Amino acid sequence: MVYEVKSLNEPKGYEIPLDEAKSLNEECGLFGIWGHPQASQLTYFGLHALQHRGQEGAGILSNDGGRLMRHRDLGLVTEVFREEKDLADLTGTSAMGHVRYATAGSADVNNIQPFLFDFHNGSLGLAHNGNLTNAKSLRCELEKNGAIFSSSSDTEILMHLIRRSHHPDFIGRVKEALNTVKGGFAYLMMTGNALVAALDPNGFRPLSIGKMSNGAWVVASETCAFDVIGAEFVQDVEPGQIVVIDDSGIHFDQYTTNTNLTICSMEYIYFARPDSTIHGVNVHTARKRSGRILAQEANIDADMVIGVPNSSLSAASGYAEESGLPYEMGLIKNQYVARTFIQPTQELREQGVRMKLSAVRGVVEGKRVIMVDDSIVRGTTSRRIVNLLKEAGAAEVHVVIASPPLAYPCFFGIDIQSREELIAASHTVEEIKEAIGADSLTFLSQQGLVDAIGHDDLCLSYFDGVYETGLYDYEEEYLASLNKM
Amino acid sequence: MVYEVKSLNEPKGYEIPLDEAKSLNEECGLFGIWGHPQASQLTYFGLHALQHRGQEGAGILSNDGGRLMRHRDLGLVTEVFREEKDLADLTGTSAMGHVRYATAGSADVNNIQPFLFDFHNGSLGLAHNGNLTNAKSLRCELEKNGAIFSSSSDTEILMHLIRRSHHPDFIGRVKEALNTVKGGFAYLMMTGNALVAALDPNGFRPLSIGKMSNGAWVVASETCAFDVIGAEFVQDVEPGQIVVIDDSGIHFDQYTTNTNLTICSMEYIYFARPDSTIHGVNVHTARKRSGRILAQEANIDADMVIGVPNSSLSAASGYAEESGLPYEMGLIKNQYVARTFIQPTQELREQGVRMKLSAVRGVVEGKRVIMVDDSIVRGTTSRRIVNLLKEAGAAEVHVVIASPPLAYPCFFGIDIQSREELIAASHTVEEIKEAIGADSLTFLSQQGLVDAIGHDDLCLSYFDGVYETGLYDYEEEYLASLNKM
Amino acid sequence: MVYEVKSLNEPKGYEIPLDEAKSLNEECGLFGIWGHPQASQLTYFGLHALQHRGQEGAGILSNDGGRLMRHRDLGLVTEVFREEKDLADLTGTSAMGHVRYATAGSADVNNIQPFLFDFHNGSLGLAHNGNLTNAKSLRCELEKNGAIFSSSSDTEILMHLIRRSHHPDFIGRVKEALNTVKGGFAYLMMTGNALVAALDPNGFRPLSIGKMSNGAWVVASETCAFDVIGAEFVQDVEPGQIVVIDDSGIHFDQYTTNTNLTICSMEYIYFARPDSTIHGVNVHTARKRSGRILAQEANIDADMVIGVPNSSLSAASGYAEESGLPYEMGLIKNQYVARTFIQPTQELREQGVRMKLSAVRGVVEGKRVIMVDDSIVRGTTSRRIVNLLKEAGAAEVHVVIASPPLAYPCFFGIDIQSREELIAASHTVEEIKEAIGADSLTFLSQQGLVDAIGHDDLCLSYFDGVYETGLYDYEEEYLASLNKM
Amino acid sequence: MVYEVKSLNEPKGYEIPLDEAKSLNEECGLFGIWGHPQASQLTYFGLHALQHRGQEGAGILSNDGGRLMRHRDLGLVTEVFREEKDLADLTGTSAMGHVRYATAGSADVNNIQPFLFDFHNGSLGLAHNGNLTNAKSLRCELEKNGAIFSSSSDTEILMHLIRRSHHPDFIGRVKEALNTVKGGFAYLMMTGNALVAALDPNGFRPLSIGKMSNGAWVVASETCAFDVIGAEFVQDVEPGQIVVIDDSGIHFDQYTTNTNLTICSMEYIYFARPDSTIHGVNVHTARKRSGRILAQEANIDADMVIGVPNSSLSAASGYAEESGLPYEMGLIKNQYVARTFIQPTQELREQGVRMKLSAVRGVVEGKRVIMVDDSIVRGTTSRRIVNLLKEAGAAEVHVVIASPPLAYPCFFGIDIQSREELIAASHTVEEIKEAIGADSLTFLSQQGLVDAIGHDDLCLSYFDGVYETGLYDYEEEYLASLNKM
Repeated sequence: MVYEVKSLNEPKGYEIPLDEAKSLNEECGLFGIWGHPQASQLTYFGLHALQHRGQEGAGILSNDGGRLMRHRDLGLVTEVFREEKDLADLTGTSAMGHVRYATAGSADVNNIQPFLFDFHNGSLGLAHNGNLTNAKSLRCELEKNGAIFSSSSDTEILMHLIRRSHHPDFIGRVKEALNTVKGGFAYLMMTGNALVAALDPNGFRPLSIGKMSNGAWVVASETCAFDVIGAEFVQDVEPGQIVVIDDSGIHFDQYTTNTNLTICSMEYIYFARPDSTIHGVNVHTARKRSGRILAQEANIDADMVIGVPNSSLSAASGYAEESGLPYEMGLIKNQYVARTFIQPTQELREQGVRMKLSAVRGVVEGKRVIMVDDSIVRGTTSRRIVNLLKEAGAAEVHVVIASPPLAYPCFFGIDIQSREELIAASHTVEEIKEAIGADSLTFLSQQGLVDAIGHDDLCLSYFDGVYETGLYDYEEEYLASLNKM
Repeated sequence: MVYEVKSLNEPKGYEIPLDEAKSLNEECGLFGIWGHPQASQLTYFGLHALQHRGQEGAGILSNDGGRLMRHRDLGLVTEVFREEKDLADLTGTSAMGHVRYATAGSADVNNIQPFLFDFHNGSLGLAHNGNLTNAKSLRCELEKNGAIFSSSSDTEILMHLIRRSHHPDFIGRVKEALNTVKGGFAYLMMTGNALVAALDPNGFRPLSIGKMSNGAWVVASETCAFDVIGAEFVQDVEPGQIVVIDDSGIHFDQYTTNTNLTICSMEYIYFARPDSTIHGVNVHTARKRSGRILAQEANIDADMVIGVPNSSLSAASGYAEESGLPYEMGLIKNQYVARTFIQPTQELREQGVRMKLSAVRGVVEGKRVIMVDDSIVRGTTSRRIVNLLKEAGAAEVHVVIASPPLAYPCFFGIDIQSREELIAASHTVEEIKEAIGADSLTFLSQQGLVDAIGHDDLCLSYFDGVYETGLYDYEEEYLASLNKM
Repeated sequence: MVYEVKSLNEPKGYEIPLDEAKSLNEECGLFGIWGHPQASQLTYFGLHALQHRGQEGAGILSNDGGRLMRHRDLGLVTEVFREEKDLADLTGTSAMGHVRYATAGSADVNNIQPFLFDFHNGSLGLAHNGNLTNAKSLRCELEKNGAIFSSSSDTEILMHLIRRSHHPDFIGRVKEALNTVKGGFAYLMMTGNALVAALDPNGFRPLSIGKMSNGAWVVASETCAFDVIGAEFVQDVEPGQIVVIDDSGIHFDQYTTNTNLTICSMEYIYFARPDSTIHGVNVHTARKRSGRILAQEANIDADMVIGVPNSSLSAASGYAEESGLPYEMGLIKNQYVARTFIQPTQELREQGVRMKLSAVRGVVEGKRVIMVDDSIVRGTTSRRIVNLLKEAGAAEVHVVIASPPLAYPCFFGIDIQSREELIAASHTVEEIKEAIGADSLTFLSQQGLVDAIGHDDLCLSYFDGVYETGLYDYEEEYLASLNKM
Repeated sequence: MVYEVKSLNEPKGYEIPLDEAKSLNEECGLFGIWGHPQASQLTYFGLHALQHRGQEGAGILSNDGGRLMRHRDLGLVTEVFREEKDLADLTGTSAMGHVRYATAGSADVNNIQPFLFDFHNGSLGLAHNGNLTNAKSLRCELEKNGAIFSSSSDTEILMHLIRRSHHPDFIGRVKEALNTVKGGFAYLMMTGNALVAALDPNGFRPLSIGKMSNGAWVVASETCAFDVIGAEFVQDVEPGQIVVIDDSGIHFDQYTTNTNLTICSMEYIYFARPDSTIHGVNVHTARKRSGRILAQEANIDADMVIGVPNSSLSAASGYAEESGLPYEMGLIKNQYVARTFIQPTQELREQGVRMKLSAVRGVVEGKRVIMVDDSIVRGTTSRRIVNLLKEAGAAEVHVVIASPPLAYPCFFGIDIQSREELIAASHTVEEIKEAIGADSLTFLSQQGLVDAIGHDDLCLSYFDGVYETGLYDYEEEYLASLNKM
């Protein structure tokens, strides 16, 4: 089923909200390992490499001869696991872990994964990256049949479906459950004798398989987690695939063959770490290429190129090389920004007090600057940075964005579920340029993005409103939102 | 007085120590403000911008109509001041603050500055950046005359000298004390009705004066602290100068005219933030220039240039531009590195488990890489990074260092007081190249460094062993160390 | 159904374990209130008064117009609720709370009550004091039918039974569930529009109803919680009763009429606070009476009577008055004992280093002392205190115990589920006297206990092995344990 | 010099303040040990036994072969030393410790003792219990001569005096300093090779010497600290005495012979632990005797005697035995009262919500109660408890106080330095009775107090305004306060 959006009545006078956070967030990172004497320690390092995918909380679950143990809490991986003991207690030769992204206001340790379910006849660990589109209706139906949920997370739904399946063997029950849930999902499960991974039929989220030199198998959301522990990349998990790893080795199976790979393009643009490789494409390389293509498409007369740290540095250096302009460090990110700190009062903020990012007057003063950023969500951040550069004396600020305009929400794992928060949903490029105070504004073309990544098995729905699979519980709300705007 | 080192017997077989920390540390950052209703809040933001100069502890002292109040603790600025209340309690229209660098093992809140001394007839705040060369003998003499020190910090010495001076007015007593201490020092003092700043006769450490739009005067170790609060740079404090700021304005005076500006060249090379400007030279620009000159001096045939994040990125981009080679992101620094975290075991470390820095296989594999770093202290870090790149498949790794070989200790504020920890003190460039496993190793020439910075009012003693002022208590020890090696 | 134990083969040579904790613990305290603007604050104070019933964790759940909110954590009530905000956030005019007793090693915040279950069509709060005897078989059966438990606590079972009942109205479903669970239980439940309390058919655990001056109804495990908030006692909840409190008032109903009140006698002897009144009998008065009767039964020639603080002071003063001997403070409990502190090493312990209790040499030296304690579990504590008194110079130590020998386990809410840990299960009084090093040892007779309390609606099974109701899942294990000993 | 107060104009209409804390506080506890392999551990246990003498902060300083180390912080002993490591790091065979009483609002870790002073030629530890009467003038004079104080504590003064003395040997310098300070003081000092104790010429504060079975010498503020570590009492330190303990043994000397023992009578009445013995008199025994004498002096017709827990239980049992009335537990102190907890709002407090103390309705209802308390300071606490008992149904409440009326301040170590806070300074017994709402009020006579204690080497100045030694800096202020009232 494909939804296409025909026309939109775009209201004028959009006010850019005052707060500065970028409202574009990933929904988690997964890591699993089978067959290594230091399984939980390696999971700790693996999760640390995946920390950018979620900072609300983290957890590790280990399997010691069939006994599952877990430690989880709110906070960064290094905060949740403070002492050697926290890991040393998680004995066993297999383990899995999860980092969770913070949806504002709902910080509850009960939602931190992996979940651990204890039954009279065994235990099961479960972790999830993605978003289900039929979660609400499934949960309601399950509750009507006596199910009790212990968290507000959708992840539990799969567990109830598995426990209520009447299929005679466990993997059969899991497959049945996977065919019931819809949307974007990568799952990891740990039973007493196997580690199980599964990916949705569109493969929206990345999930890769690696191998340690001792033969241990590793599964992770991004390949950067393999590098940090010295594992070698083996292959990506395919759409509709279920992977079972146990003492007899690794086993690949399809729970459905009705698949169509459309990996989230925002992984390349913004989410993934530059050192990760997704479906054969290194992320830094794709970003640098997007900068090069952008330079060809934009062709701006200026004195220097600067990137917004840290996610846009690759694209900026590509732009600089292609354009022949010098690549300068015109913006400095304070490396000591804590998760919580005292904010300047409104009065001080107006006076120019800023904690995270500074413009380098000695570099930009009197110069025509090309400022490269990865994307524009609400426009708040862009406006703020343009302003920073102008206050530091930049003569002109030309904003170039290494992706097309974000105009539609995502229902498969990125935290934009409303068009209201997307400035490009209701404004022309010219209007956005005015709103952010830039001297010019250029977005990468959609074809330019595809060329930069180098393949077209991509989900591009945020750019064109074309959803490759059903929206289920979100459908009505989504259509209403289109009319509203 | 000038010390020159004639010849050194350099022993062979130097073993690079195993631990990975760079033993090159700054000794603190200062910030002061006079005449602003939100003085302590601005000090907080200013200290935050100076956080790179010291992470052991921080403190702020405010002056509310002559009453001095203080809050200090171990930790980062954002850790020491966790709640609005911590700042709100520090009322008053003037304030000063300090960030302190961690000398291993001596974490004691009593050493965290600003110091606050309460007397029956008034209070005084005091903070210090630098290192005194006659501290030991002054302290001994003072104690013999009944003085009691409350910390192991040398900073207290100035206070005792001031209190024991018989000069009739306060500034006269301060000048007398300043003429007694020797070495590298920038001091800030707060009395009930003035903020006082002073710099040593060589001006080893940077100290600048700025102004807010409301007329408030600001003093800070680096100009990046002005940018973060929206203050404008006015001028640098000069060697031998004492600056008194009170409600009548700012007053400049010299406590000595026997001065000779030799600002620490390592501030340009490594310590200062790239967005700071010291004695008219922007730090990023100087570093980028050092990369350009290095490219001319080195002339290496390779495929790409990469910088060691974060301090060497400016030099690397300069090298890339001058050489025409692409500037690539071949090393990724994990942005979530906490101050304390669980370390990989030796076994895991050998297996390649690393938490802070990753090499990007997709970028460097099969390539001849020029790796730009700012300096080599013990060689440990360089060897580790070369190894990372080779493991990630780099065909060749050419190390280029944007400063001359560090061969002599510093006694004026940098934490290298022993030649034993400097690999270049006892090894030739060829030997160091072997030790770090590089395919080639090139250091910037001393003239190249001077040219990159653009002026020669520099302390270069770590490179050439020529000390511009007396070593006092360190003299004997230093001369012995020369003979020992 | 009544179980009677015929004969026991008691092995000799029992070794008293070395650690000093008294292994006799209550399983929780309940508090609920309906109809007061400061419902959660009053629950906080009520729980504080019930703190002696459980120190592992605490929680409060409030109901604001049908919306249920909760705060819970490990720790004492004052530790879980540290800031005004913790309570202020729990808005609404009704609330319920729970303090949980620590079963060693299983400290998991998921087991801390009240439980809060959110369903698509409403929420429910649940808290429990007691122990179910058919929990294991119920849980197993429920899981086989797809139920997923989120804690290791038996309390959840009731929730699953309620959700799976097909009775058309909520109270009907609750009654059906109450008739399915067996053992000792007092439940509190909060729905959007009612507070529900229920007691098992034997009324093993105390549960009372009180009223505030504003008309608010209060339910609590002990009446001391009424005194602390200024509520008046109204009546005890009866066995088999279900009490529904809503805006229309209070409603009493029986979910079963097959009842037989046998309240736990250990509540009078040890658990309850002396200022509580249970089924019309003040606990201090019952304890003082037990001391008087003990004095008549024991008739020991001595110089003074001392009580083991704090639980035995009432009995000791009764003994003193009846015997005419002076009541002295021969043992001092350190009032600053923290929950965790550094223990003396074994070497120091042997040297006499003790943190919790001291004997007063100036009082007991050279004296013949009657030491009154409430009970003997393993004998460890008694031996330790006898030893303390002898080391402080007591000439004779006569131990008198204000309850009969504890020889059988409890399955209805006290943490003694194994006969192995009861010294009196396998030893004669003479043997115990030898084991604890006393000059004489006297237990209160069972009739003396009944007379002291003043009614015989008591569970006395720990003394005589006669269980007033079925043991279900424990039956087999219990019978085996009888044969083993 | 003896001050005698002639007449006082007592104003009427005194308002009892609303807050409930008893403003009668001890100023610290001392502990020292020389010659034991586990010196710091034993100091920890000793300080724990002295915890009632001060709860603001605690510290331990150990001496390992001349190297002094220290750990101190705000909080209870068990909070300051949380981990084995905290003690294990304090190696060495001698140690000293201190618990500090909290003077409101000045919680500063810099004031926590023992102080540790490091000099170029050695270190010195110092701790103090008491109050100097010439501190202000000494501090002023020292500062005028260049001294710098690092705390607001008077304790430092002794250190400055010692360092400025020109006596050739250390003990000579200490003696000179001891003869300069005035007031009430017990000092402990640790040098590299000796532990030194000293007491003021009046011996206001208790200080005793004990011995371990291994020969180690122990010094402590109270003998209860000996019992807890298994040490034996040897003797009290005498007024004007200086005691030096080193590897050659213990050495007694007098720094002055102008002495007159007047030990603080409040130590017997309120401060000391009942199991301590001071100058040969066990505290519990003295208190019980005071209760007996009070019964003879008061002769009240009533139904029962109850003590205010915990300090008045000894006196209450003495009263009960002498009068033949039953001793009952009519007041219960919540044993789980934390150092900080959420307070009832004023509205709830009026409604009867109380956290610390409950009256037992089942015991006192309809009864004529004699309530024994140790002292009345402001009357607030007494009024509150009388009210509690009346609300719980007591027919009559007769308050009997086991000490004479407190009418004059103390300048030697108890925290009452103003007559304004003493209700008995300005009110007759009849007026106080009315103010606290009692049916009768009886104070122990001064002779009764002396008889109960059993010797008259006592400071009774709070009762009669007769000060046994000069008031120095306080003199003017005190005389003014007499006229004011």
